[in-house]
Amino acid sequence: AETKKIAVISGDGIGPEVVAEALKVVKKTEELFGYKFETEEGLFGGIAIDQKGTPLPQETLDICKKADAVLLGAVGGPKWDSNPGELRPETGLLGIRKALGLFSNIRPAVVFDCLKEASTLKPEVLEGTDLIVVRELTGGIYFGEKLRRQGESGEEAVDTCVYNVKEVERIVRQAFEIARTRRKKLASVDKANVLETSRLWRETVNRIAPDYPDVELEHVLVDNCAMQLLRRPSSFDVIVTENMFGDILSDEAAMLTGSIGMLSSASLGEGSFGLYEPVHGSAPDIAGKGIANPIATILSVALMFRLTFGYHDAADSIERAVKEVLDAGHRTGDIAVDPSQAIGTTAMGDLIIAAM
Amino acid sequence: AETKKIAVISGDGIGPEVVAEALKVVKKTEELFGYKFETEEGLFGGIAIDQKGTPLPQETLDICKKADAVLLGAVGGPKWDSNPGELRPETGLLGIRKALGLFSNIRPAVVFDCLKEASTLKPEVLEGTDLIVVRELTGGIYFGEKLRRQGESGEEAVDTCVYNVKEVERIVRQAFEIARTRRKKLASVDKANVLETSRLWRETVNRIAPDYPDVELEHVLVDNCAMQLLRRPSSFDVIVTENMFGDILSDEAAMLTGSIGMLSSASLGEGSFGLYEPVHGSAPDIAGKGIANPIATILSVALMFRLTFGYHDAADSIERAVKEVLDAGHRTGDIAVDPSQAIGTTAMGDLIIAAM
Ligand SMILES: CC(C)[C@H](C(=O)O)[C@@H](O)C(=O)O
Ligand SMILES: CC(C)[C@H](C(=O)O)[C@@H](O)C(=O)O
Repeated sequence: AETKKIAVISGDGIGPEVVAEALKVVKKTEELFGYKFETEEGLFGGIAIDQKGTPLPQETLDICKKADAVLLGAVGGPKWDSNPGELRPETGLLGIRKALGLFSNIRPAVVFDCLKEASTLKPEVLEGTDLIVVRELTGGIYFGEKLRRQGESGEEAVDTCVYNVKEVERIVRQAFEIARTRRKKLASVDKANVLETSRLWRETVNRIAPDYPDVELEHVLVDNCAMQLLRRPSSFDVIVTENMFGDILSDEAAMLTGSIGMLSSASLGEGSFGLYEPVHGSAPDIAGKGIANPIATILSVALMFRLTFGYHDAADSIERAVKEVLDAGHRTGDIAVDPSQAIGTTAMGDLIIAAM
Repeated sequence: AETKKIAVISGDGIGPEVVAEALKVVKKTEELFGYKFETEEGLFGGIAIDQKGTPLPQETLDICKKADAVLLGAVGGPKWDSNPGELRPETGLLGIRKALGLFSNIRPAVVFDCLKEASTLKPEVLEGTDLIVVRELTGGIYFGEKLRRQGESGEEAVDTCVYNVKEVERIVRQAFEIARTRRKKLASVDKANVLETSRLWRETVNRIAPDYPDVELEHVLVDNCAMQLLRRPSSFDVIVTENMFGDILSDEAAMLTGSIGMLSSASLGEGSFGLYEPVHGSAPDIAGKGIANPIATILSVALMFRLTFGYHDAADSIERAVKEVLDAGHRTGDIAVDPSQAIGTTAMGDLIIAAM
């Protein structure tokens, strides 16, 4: 098989620890399935600020651009939280999304059997919850013009939210396509009763919808969606929305599953290129202790195999292995009922590759 | 006592039915406590569109401006949902907020004992949840410039989010004051890692905070807040945030209590003037059937007595009466365990005034 290039960005906090386990899985895949991968590491986030004076060095961007996919651990931590804007890890995150054209963030929110009890929702409400939030990632108020100025009533700040029809169309089409491979339901979320960008969004969705007659479409206002996610989470299949609403709703959706420590995500652009990362953050409080849960990052590799490379056999194998290890009762501290029985990051990684 | 003027806007759907019960409570208060009220009705929302060709007739606005407080039922319904912007009920809602200078929306999210089971959250997570969302109501992306234009990549839409220091300061001070009367904890919610308006917001909060050394302040990012509301709802006391975030978070907070049909809200400006309304909507599906639950509207009257008039004795009496009636097992259909035992709107109103 052709050698695939993976850019590896360990980042900060527990990033390096969980990425190390994910790379063992990549290696195991080569042995088991004959696929070939080449990995190249890049500095990003806090560690890049410390070593290179910028959260997103050009070198790292070049490594990503040459690669077929990017595996990201996590970035950020209190050390950089009070830095000025251009020296903050999240500026790097916004920068890499824009520079790589990653206009779509795919966040599956599923419930892991072993974590059912971890949710604050009642089990009977959660039952059958399996949804994906498709969030527009390079437009809207995140990237519009920002400024400070003296207004009539003193200092004021301005953010601008802009969307053009093409930006809306490409993300919405992608969401329709994803819905087609699933339960064929799409909820498009906007605030069309107030925002002009939402009205453009809704018109565009309605114009495109006839191309997907097999997908059932509903329009949901963002405030109502925040409620319905709580009331009837299992009724959602695919949710598509703009950048800011997606930021809020994807986190709400992830949290209500109770499985946030186990969830993976993909950020995609045109073509098959994608950046894959766990939903959880850099967890500075447990960094370096060898106790972080590598499963979300390992599942991000499975997602990469599926979405970027089309290596479904390898993705299946990883996902099955994770399930097997969990079913056998193995747990890292974050998901252990009895923390004294918890295993460490490396042990969890070893068990998973053994089960592949 | 001085006669207080209440502008009464019944609105659409179940609005007139629930407002009628609330007015019986107002009348009962006169008898019991010797306060004097004068009410004047105004058309607003869908009914005003039908009868006057605009959701917010000047006449109605004048009635409100002459009044000391406004009692609002609910507005909107499918009949007007596909109208153009200026002929939609929500345009009236935004208009009345701006015209009356109602910059602050106060939304208590409390759990009613009899509705504990109605929440989708586990009872042990919900235990002790009693929070207030203070939402900025006349600024931000709701009221900034909106436009359509031809951009480089075709048609695009723009919304503008603007905040000045004064707008932030007045709402934040109000939230600090409210926190002082409660558990003395304030969570200020923003997206300061991305938005300029959020950075202005956070700076302003930090500048003001030393004036309230007795209040414990935390800054929470909006995405994180959407999660924490689910994870630890009872740990919040007062949450203050900008208009759009407040729209989403106040609905999420209301829904997680399971008591959304019972919650009241206040929209306040400078001075003691306020507009009071139930959090639930116009529920067109049950309108005119005499089965709507009037409790949220009756509790909105209690809130009016407390916040605008300082009639704490009357407010206490109403709130106690509601509790008594519920404790005695009386339920409208929406909150009844056994719907065949449910009582109607008028019966519930009668029981509450009898219990006062
Ligand atoms: C860190 C922040 C800029 C980022 C975002 O808001 O996009 C994060 O919350 C996320 O969702 O990836
Ligand atoms: C109807 C709509 C314009 C309104 C808002 O977004 O403010 C509503 O959702 C609310 O919260 O009162």
